[in-house]
Amino acid sequence: MPIGKPAAYAPDLLQVIAAHKALRERRPLVQCLTNTVSANFVANALLAAGAAPAMVDNPQEAALFAGIADAVLINLGTPTDAQVTSMRLAAEAADGAGKPWVLDPIAAGALPWRGGVALELLRYYPAVIRGNASEVIGLAGLGGGARGVDSSADPAAAVPAALDLLKHATAVSASGAVDHVLGRIGQSGQIALIRISGGSALLPRVTATGCALGALVAAYASVSPDRFTGLVAAHVHFSVAAEIAALSASRPGSFAPAFLDALDAVDEAALRERARIGEPESL
Amino acid sequence: MPIGKPAAYAPDLLQVIAAHKALRERRPLVQCLTNTVSANFVANALLAAGAAPAMVDNPQEAALFAGIADAVLINLGTPTDAQVTSMRLAAEAADGAGKPWVLDPIAAGALPWRGGVALELLRYYPAVIRGNASEVIGLAGLGGGARGVDSSADPAAAVPAALDLLKHATAVSASGAVDHVLGRIGQSGQIALIRISGGSALLPRVTATGCALGALVAAYASVSPDRFTGLVAAHVHFSVAAEIAALSASRPGSFAPAFLDALDAVDEAALRERARIGEPESL
Amino acid sequence: MPIGKPAAYAPDLLQVIAAHKALRERRPLVQCLTNTVSANFVANALLAAGAAPAMVDNPQEAALFAGIADAVLINLGTPTDAQVTSMRLAAEAADGAGKPWVLDPIAAGALPWRGGVALELLRYYPAVIRGNASEVIGLAGLGGGARGVDSSADPAAAVPAALDLLKHATAVSASGAVDHVLGRIGQSGQIALIRISGGSALLPRVTATGCALGALVAAYASVSPDRFTGLVAAHVHFSVAAEIAALSASRPGSFAPAFLDALDAVDEAALRERARIGEPESL
Repeated sequence: MPIGKPAAYAPDLLQVIAAHKALRERRPLVQCLTNTVSANFVANALLAAGAAPAMVDNPQEAALFAGIADAVLINLGTPTDAQVTSMRLAAEAADGAGKPWVLDPIAAGALPWRGGVALELLRYYPAVIRGNASEVIGLAGLGGGARGVDSSADPAAAVPAALDLLKHATAVSASGAVDHVLGRIGQSGQIALIRISGGSALLPRVTATGCALGALVAAYASVSPDRFTGLVAAHVHFSVAAEIAALSASRPGSFAPAFLDALDAVDEAALRERARIGEPESL
Repeated sequence: MPIGKPAAYAPDLLQVIAAHKALRERRPLVQCLTNTVSANFVANALLAAGAAPAMVDNPQEAALFAGIADAVLINLGTPTDAQVTSMRLAAEAADGAGKPWVLDPIAAGALPWRGGVALELLRYYPAVIRGNASEVIGLAGLGGGARGVDSSADPAAAVPAALDLLKHATAVSASGAVDHVLGRIGQSGQIALIRISGGSALLPRVTATGCALGALVAAYASVSPDRFTGLVAAHVHFSVAAEIAALSASRPGSFAPAFLDALDAVDEAALRERARIGEPESL
Repeated sequence: MPIGKPAAYAPDLLQVIAAHKALRERRPLVQCLTNTVSANFVANALLAAGAAPAMVDNPQEAALFAGIADAVLINLGTPTDAQVTSMRLAAEAADGAGKPWVLDPIAAGALPWRGGVALELLRYYPAVIRGNASEVIGLAGLGGGARGVDSSADPAAAVPAALDLLKHATAVSASGAVDHVLGRIGQSGQIALIRISGGSALLPRVTATGCALGALVAAYASVSPDRFTGLVAAHVHFSVAAEIAALSASRPGSFAPAFLDALDAVDEAALRERARIGEPESL
């Protein structure tokens, strides 16, 4: 059973440009329940891209704030007991309020405790699941779907797992050298795969870049006409920014601030010049 | 009833220069109970400005360390239960030991749980309350004073709320495009408002800059002859540094390290050239 | 009684070059239980240097992950109750699995609660203890060894304390302007002191650089023929990188990304040109 609204058409450059415009105009507030490694970088990435962060992740306020925020990011990087409680509350509240929430299932396939947390969170219908290839494969493996091989770094290998996860989420992406993004389009809800190229080999050399992408996905999901379009737009904004950053930085330390600058600098012209959105492939 | 020692005279450039000199000579140790987003940036800002940070925020050590530190920062950004316990202990110990502590009431007016924590902490006489305009308004609103409107971004609108908070703290500031700083001067303890201009529009585009200002306020409060002078000096050092950083950085990613460099670079000559301290206005 | 395998010969430039080559080839996975201030910087430093970080620090997963990781860092900077439980579990599991773990005893000599934690952790045989001079002195003082004077910043003054700590660890270092590194060499297990110069006066002006060194020590310990060689190699890689960073950065804000770039840039040629490893001195 498809979940959420399918995209009217396969997301393309014009829709990405429209989503980017909406992001800059509406400046969505993203509640982030994320790990200690990424909190600062995620907040700065949201601010640079044109959204607003709020790291409200305690059990006393998590549900309340999910009703205030425009979108919620739940990232399993360094969960504490209190944060796990907050994740349940925020996911439930976001689901109840019709706010999109994004699951970033870091290491859920490799570590049983957080695997259980991830499975439980799937009950609350994430708008989007975003991970690297092995995380997407690992999460799907927990549900008894595509096998939980945790060693692949190639997003193409994660497509069967992503397909499987579309039972739980409106759209799913596996990021890597070429991002693979899956969602539904048209009245039939036909599943489509869109490949997004670009980015930079320096992205995985800087910690928390994947976490920042997850947060950007949440921001875009809240301002886009549908989740699939929002997910594609976030990946494109991110990849274009990484490509721009790599023009001026060749090592990871200087790449990080250059990347934040580039998230800010990305405009319609940059999207038109650098976006590399593949033709949708029906699955 | 006024709390703490009023400034002998309205803080001006010469007193700011003297406080800056004292900061560099004495290198005060600031205990920071702050949020996960800001911990790294706050520590680096203190180090760059000329102080020393220590993030001791567990219940076992918080009170003990408040007796060792020169000043304490309590920031409500991402409170955990343990951290809230530590905040009570550190505030009480700082108050008992005559050490200045600074309250940064992030979102206290908007979220009831932390609002209750903030109200409870006010019992321990913060030397300074520092927030952005809406946070100052929100905190005052909790106490039944100026109304808790949480939507204004203009520090001028926060002056009635800041006045109200002077019941609880020796000095209060609302930061924004023009910082509004309130304290008492002279033997009569007459309340004065001082406006500090400068800064950069990039400051709110970088997360944790406000938190870093709160920490710098704590550092200056511990080396200045009175809290009002320390608060003004911290705002001026901060604004001048932001202005210098904006000379070489035009986007948020590169602004952050440039700002830390500038906190380090600020010296008497920079203060003389760039400080913009308004004439005190009696309230 | 000596613990661990002594170095076959006193670690020298050729062994450091070999260890650096092994690091780059094997890209060891380092589990970090570290403080909130340093988590991001530590992860980025490991990535830049050529290792892989994983901040698994919850009680549910800490022991399991110590079996997966190649090495473990335990840093006492901002311990929570849950993290302390995780530290015990990870140290025990690392010890049981023969994985090297590194103790960074921040402020253990100054604060009794974490001092007790540090003493308890010593039972699990850290491969290496690394701290600044006063931390090494403070930790040794807890055990009733060299006196716990916590005021010295000179690593030379920490040599008696480091000697004492060799009862608990295979190798010990006190870092500062000249790093002092102690371990055992040859079949007799003769204790040797090696002094490593270089670095930059900007290192202590950036928070978490010491924590990053601790993590790098863990990485090197897992790819080197013995712990002493790994410890020397980590210090040399770190010092050479700081020296390179200081060529292009003169203030702390810009030094931080330049230092990460330099951790990445250090290669055999840089080690040959800049490593300053003193002659071993028998103790």
